[in-house]
Amino acid sequence: MKSLDRKTEIITIAAKLFKEKGYSAVTMRDIAQAMDIKAASLYNHIKSKQEILVLIIIEIAEEFTKVMNEIMLSDETCIQKIEKVIQLHVDITVRDSDALASLNADWMHLADAELAYFIKMREEYEENFRKIIMKGIADGELKKLNPEVIIFSIHTTLRTLYLWYGKKKSLNASVLKSNMTQVLLHGIV
Amino acid sequence: MKSLDRKTEIITIAAKLFKEKGYSAVTMRDIAQAMDIKAASLYNHIKSKQEILVLIIIEIAEEFTKVMNEIMLSDETCIQKIEKVIQLHVDITVRDSDALASLNADWMHLADAELAYFIKMREEYEENFRKIIMKGIADGELKKLNPEVIIFSIHTTLRTLYLWYGKKKSLNASVLKSNMTQVLLHGIV
Repeated sequence: MKSLDRKTEIITIAAKLFKEKGYSAVTMRDIAQAMDIKAASLYNHIKSKQEILVLIIIEIAEEFTKVMNEIMLSDETCIQKIEKVIQLHVDITVRDSDALASLNADWMHLADAELAYFIKMREEYEENFRKIIMKGIADGELKKLNPEVIIFSIHTTLRTLYLWYGKKKSLNASVLKSNMTQVLLHGIV
Repeated sequence: MKSLDRKTEIITIAAKLFKEKGYSAVTMRDIAQAMDIKAASLYNHIKSKQEILVLIIIEIAEEFTKVMNEIMLSDETCIQKIEKVIQLHVDITVRDSDALASLNADWMHLADAELAYFIKMREEYEENFRKIIMKGIADGELKKLNPEVIIFSIHTTLRTLYLWYGKKKSLNASVLKSNMTQVLLHGIV
């Protein structure tokens, strides 16, 4: 249990450092220093910077994948499914914006197998989101607009939310969720 | 006139190279090579890479500023003003996505006076956009939603459009404009 907590602490501190300085510029020594421990102690808990990156990115990517799969299997309407996707992004952004920053900026530093696994998860996620939108249009739940424009505008807003949220922490999660759902689904007019 | 055309060609080719390799990695020699001329000839038209960057970024920033100022001075409704802002972004994206990529990725490489001028234009632009949204909410033209969420979602969609449009060139400008206006103003439901 103690060791698990220590791992969480390493990941949290490393994600913050990766965001501030970029993955490549951060050393294991920097991470140890930020935790106020010796570099040798750090290696008792974790093998390498690469292992930390895998823990940060793959964990978040698996969470997106798991919740998206649940959404896809549910009997809900397309609109309800989109609402769930928006909630998922807001929840992870509010809880873990440093890790999301690392996922967006540093995923290309993952090594072979993990990189392939990450890209596969991302592609499936995007494919599932596309299916929801296409079905929503086909069933008449969504307006007959160009699906690419819909997918892009919702996706880019949710994907860049962590950049903006870092500066607006005063907004609480439930206010953000309800306003984001209104703006993205029902518009501002 | 001949010289002006040459300058446009330099800017067009340099913006493409900056996008592909990043501003710092591109040399005047690379630009000359891509134009199939000698580096010495390039210097007949332009003093430095920095001068090219200024031409690319400041020209686009001044265009955004000029059109935004016209929009602010007009008697139109807030909704019409937002429509004009969306049109402006789509027009510049469709016409000049390489230059927009350079503006977004390389603005911090501008030297002192131009950097300050660029930041001032950007801040005024964002301030004007905020005024339109705040007035729209105050006048009851827009829904009473959190203005920060509205501003962020529209702004991030328009700002990242060039990244997406590069891959979707098949979409023509007027279809993109009308669909983007629908999605951002009136929603997808």
